[in-house]
Amino acid sequence: MDRKNDRLLAMGALQGEEVPVSADVNLAGLGKDLSDIDLLKDFQPGPLDEYRKKASFSWKKMRLFLDGEDMLRFKNHIWKTLENDPLFARSIETQSLEMTRELTFKRCKRLFEYDFLTDDMLFQNPLFYRGLNDCLGQYDWSLSAKVQLTQQFFGGTLQSLGSSRHRELVKQCDAMELFGCFALTELSHGSNTKAMRTTATYIPGTEEFELNTPDFEAVKIWVGNLGKTATHALVYAQLYTPDGKCHGLHTFVTPIRDPRTLQTLPGVMVGDMGEKIGLNGIDNGFVMFSKLRIPRINLLNKTGDVSAAGKYITPFKDPNKRFGASLGALSGGRVGITSMGLTNLKSAITIAIRYSAVRRQFGPRENEEIPVIEYQLQQWRLFPYLALMYTLEHFCKTFFMDYVSIRAGTIMGDNSQRQADLGREVHALSCISKPLSGWLVRDAIQECREACGGHGYFKVNRLGDLRNDHDPNNTYEGDNNVIQQQTSNYLLGMFENFVTKGEPMSSPLETINFISDYKTILQQKFSARSIRDCKNPKVALEGYKWLVCRLMRDSYTKLRQELGSGKDQFSARNDSQVYYSRSLSLAYMEVL
Amino acid sequence: MDRKNDRLLAMGALQGEEVPVSADVNLAGLGKDLSDIDLLKDFQPGPLDEYRKKASFSWKKMRLFLDGEDMLRFKNHIWKTLENDPLFARSIETQSLEMTRELTFKRCKRLFEYDFLTDDMLFQNPLFYRGLNDCLGQYDWSLSAKVQLTQQFFGGTLQSLGSSRHRELVKQCDAMELFGCFALTELSHGSNTKAMRTTATYIPGTEEFELNTPDFEAVKIWVGNLGKTATHALVYAQLYTPDGKCHGLHTFVTPIRDPRTLQTLPGVMVGDMGEKIGLNGIDNGFVMFSKLRIPRINLLNKTGDVSAAGKYITPFKDPNKRFGASLGALSGGRVGITSMGLTNLKSAITIAIRYSAVRRQFGPRENEEIPVIEYQLQQWRLFPYLALMYTLEHFCKTFFMDYVSIRAGTIMGDNSQRQADLGREVHALSCISKPLSGWLVRDAIQECREACGGHGYFKVNRLGDLRNDHDPNNTYEGDNNVIQQQTSNYLLGMFENFVTKGEPMSSPLETINFISDYKTILQQKFSARSIRDCKNPKVALEGYKWLVCRLMRDSYTKLRQELGSGKDQFSARNDSQVYYSRSLSLAYMEVL
Repeated sequence: MDRKNDRLLAMGALQGEEVPVSADVNLAGLGKDLSDIDLLKDFQPGPLDEYRKKASFSWKKMRLFLDGEDMLRFKNHIWKTLENDPLFARSIETQSLEMTRELTFKRCKRLFEYDFLTDDMLFQNPLFYRGLNDCLGQYDWSLSAKVQLTQQFFGGTLQSLGSSRHRELVKQCDAMELFGCFALTELSHGSNTKAMRTTATYIPGTEEFELNTPDFEAVKIWVGNLGKTATHALVYAQLYTPDGKCHGLHTFVTPIRDPRTLQTLPGVMVGDMGEKIGLNGIDNGFVMFSKLRIPRINLLNKTGDVSAAGKYITPFKDPNKRFGASLGALSGGRVGITSMGLTNLKSAITIAIRYSAVRRQFGPRENEEIPVIEYQLQQWRLFPYLALMYTLEHFCKTFFMDYVSIRAGTIMGDNSQRQADLGREVHALSCISKPLSGWLVRDAIQECREACGGHGYFKVNRLGDLRNDHDPNNTYEGDNNVIQQQTSNYLLGMFENFVTKGEPMSSPLETINFISDYKTILQQKFSARSIRDCKNPKVALEGYKWLVCRLMRDSYTKLRQELGSGKDQFSARNDSQVYYSRSLSLAYMEVL
Repeated sequence: MDRKNDRLLAMGALQGEEVPVSADVNLAGLGKDLSDIDLLKDFQPGPLDEYRKKASFSWKKMRLFLDGEDMLRFKNHIWKTLENDPLFARSIETQSLEMTRELTFKRCKRLFEYDFLTDDMLFQNPLFYRGLNDCLGQYDWSLSAKVQLTQQFFGGTLQSLGSSRHRELVKQCDAMELFGCFALTELSHGSNTKAMRTTATYIPGTEEFELNTPDFEAVKIWVGNLGKTATHALVYAQLYTPDGKCHGLHTFVTPIRDPRTLQTLPGVMVGDMGEKIGLNGIDNGFVMFSKLRIPRINLLNKTGDVSAAGKYITPFKDPNKRFGASLGALSGGRVGITSMGLTNLKSAITIAIRYSAVRRQFGPRENEEIPVIEYQLQQWRLFPYLALMYTLEHFCKTFFMDYVSIRAGTIMGDNSQRQADLGREVHALSCISKPLSGWLVRDAIQECREACGGHGYFKVNRLGDLRNDHDPNNTYEGDNNVIQQQTSNYLLGMFENFVTKGEPMSSPLETINFISDYKTILQQKFSARSIRDCKNPKVALEGYKWLVCRLMRDSYTKLRQELGSGKDQFSARNDSQVYYSRSLSLAYMEVL
């Protein structure tokens, strides 16, 4: 085991290495000589000096506070390395689709060589994982995705869902001797994973699975890395044993192309999905299987296996429990996407505020123009998003550590109730943190684009690419409007047990505990009477708590009503989203 | 005079040709044989049949009602022609910047040959002008812009601001023997046109103007068509007479490139501005002039001229009046952009609703999935934008005719008070209709993109291009947040005269008349008590009227307060935008 993956990442947290979310200790660093960190050096003199001098705080202290010395050194090293490597030079014009893919692949290969995040470092501080993605994402999300798809989605899953018989493949993946991808979504089924129709039928005679795509609608699509470069795919298919029984979705390592020639293997029809709105460095592909035979051992067998004779074996008795147990661990994608929004916000808001400080237009007197940042309207457009950036920075950091502790628990075989509860809570949180971050940053980027006027419309100023690359965050790992229903389902379930069975309204991270007092809270009135009162964060927090309690009660009542009118669960839930459950999910997140 | 331009367009309205905004007459057409109109033929059978059969109205009647038979035939002809011409075939992948420009230019040339909109047709019905832009815009806004920049912005302005001495150039423009552009914006000044710094100094000895760019910040930028193809530009420069006096911005026809070789002429430094977020068929350019000499007669001399000896002559005594007189006519760009939003909305909402009717995901029972359009949440996301489309369709059509009547009045020398008042009102309206249409359609396209899930993220499905090409509508012809201030300024000015001088609160289109009753209106209470009550449009309208009156009064009070606290007009207005004047402008538009 010598690769950087979730496991090591989680192990770091277990070693009692206290990760400084607040970096008080490091602040002392400013007394030290930190002049070798470029990210803490004075800016070159320029038109922004005027505003920089006006700052009421030290930006160096702020940066140290947010990241800490070690992280700054880490990021510095990455930036410097990429800056000095001509392969990472940006082009001013959009390249052809083919060239874009080729360049991204070459850069991906180079990143394997640089190996920025060693196991030791990850072990020392799991937050380095976020730091790396922050840097790569600010450079190009296609590149970041390309690396993660093969390292995490392919290699990481191989390791966590596979067993010792897959160890050789993991090694090859680490050495980039093979290049992986993750094939789950089908043409007709994205969100509804249970309805997927690719099959893997076990053939006892040859100890093989026969992988088959019944028709065009079951073709695996959107598979990142598959269009041009992947040699292996993790394919999700309904497992059938010779007795004709279906055991649900399982994962199969499937060779797609010859690693030396990249020629497609027989039985596989693979292709490129073509140009997208953004992220064109990623070659999304589709694949159909015509009764492709793969060895029995290609099944990732941690949660279920088939014996040589064709008997299905699973350590779980209740398939629902198996599904539930993995909820927390499956949140990783959404935890990551929540952070991706933050990274994009950092880029966009920096561009727009710097521009606003330099751009002058109109003024109180002829021949005197003032920077547009001086306009109340411009501040009103941008500053809330600046505040959002700090809020998200704090949330993403702590939330990431919550996720790490779940992964650590899973790996250490923690079967406690708390571990299960934490898994459900983090699942519920990630199902609304992703939409909220995705939507808010979407709007922030757009506001920044418009706030920069015509200059914001140039490609080189990046706001268009940021918008186009951020866009899919609102769709993948669950369309925002679909996935947020998981959050209200969680809340409604807990609330129902609280109201009808008297079970406690509480959760490991205590995000729902206050709802126990919903009756008292709902009797409170808005008591702030002055602007000063309203500036008190307690006032806003109390307002949000009231709102959550109100929406909790009303959504619950609405759902009861819909069920009472004779609708089934499915219809009742659908018809209580607008103005009820959907609003509840969003308000719940805003309390945090 | 043999070209299609605003003049002819305006003349049509004067001929007493009643333009049927409601097409009642043509509805009888359904009894006739209209089977030669492709746009009225039955759709090919397909997966949408199920929903098409459920319609509670005849889509053919609706289409006839919206456009009328003549317009349908006109659009039909354009679509058919483009469809049958391989030059207009779309490519699946983004082409290189150079290829995109080249293709757009070739298509532009072909459109000159097709000459879809003859003078006779425009004379018969000015709405054909909208129909043409609707078709071209749905195909490609770059192409539409390329044609309009040379025909309307260059040729049209040459004709309306020039005189008989420019007639030969107009003819060449019509024959595409020259290719024009419009150079107003400078690097440091967009919205603040008065602060522009390009100079045109008259040299009596040689009867020439010396055109000069003082420094880099005064370079003309964003000039569409200038980057690669324009041979002539209309350059806006501060006119200086030999006595050293500046007479403000004037317009000069300026040769840029040799029409035969496209070689840049001496004294001109011209370049391409590179790739943008969208609209890349348009070659936006920049240009600097190094004491370039152009003949005296190149000044467009309708509103001001310089004699051979160097004396400035103008028919207007009051430069402010000259500015005011042209306000209405200058609204054309914003009237057009309001419509461009509508055209984009038509494309986006059609794509998203059709997709939603076909895409199935989840269902009440296993093995039964329902079209996503059946979900209340999906309807809630999309249907308001469908309603917006019909609302905007009606508004844009009538508003366009208001604009046409202003142009007609200007051309016929109408100096009446009503003509001036109408000009101011249409100016105020266009300064908020453009932002509102721009923003709402921006949000609509984004919602459609997300509502189509991953499929919406493919380039071929057009939602990305729609978003990227729609985006600048929120910036050009005045950044939305800046230009909307013209609307509140108009309202505040009228209101002040009403309150302090007892002048009538009324306007030719009667959009502000109800504000006279603001005291009564503000005493009204919300009286609807049931969902049925709320569905009555009168309730919503009364609510909006109340809101406008409230914001009118509060914005006025706020402005007074700011002035009373010692601020100058400039600062007082800036500091009463957020929550006051800006909201007032938006609410005013929503009443209409």
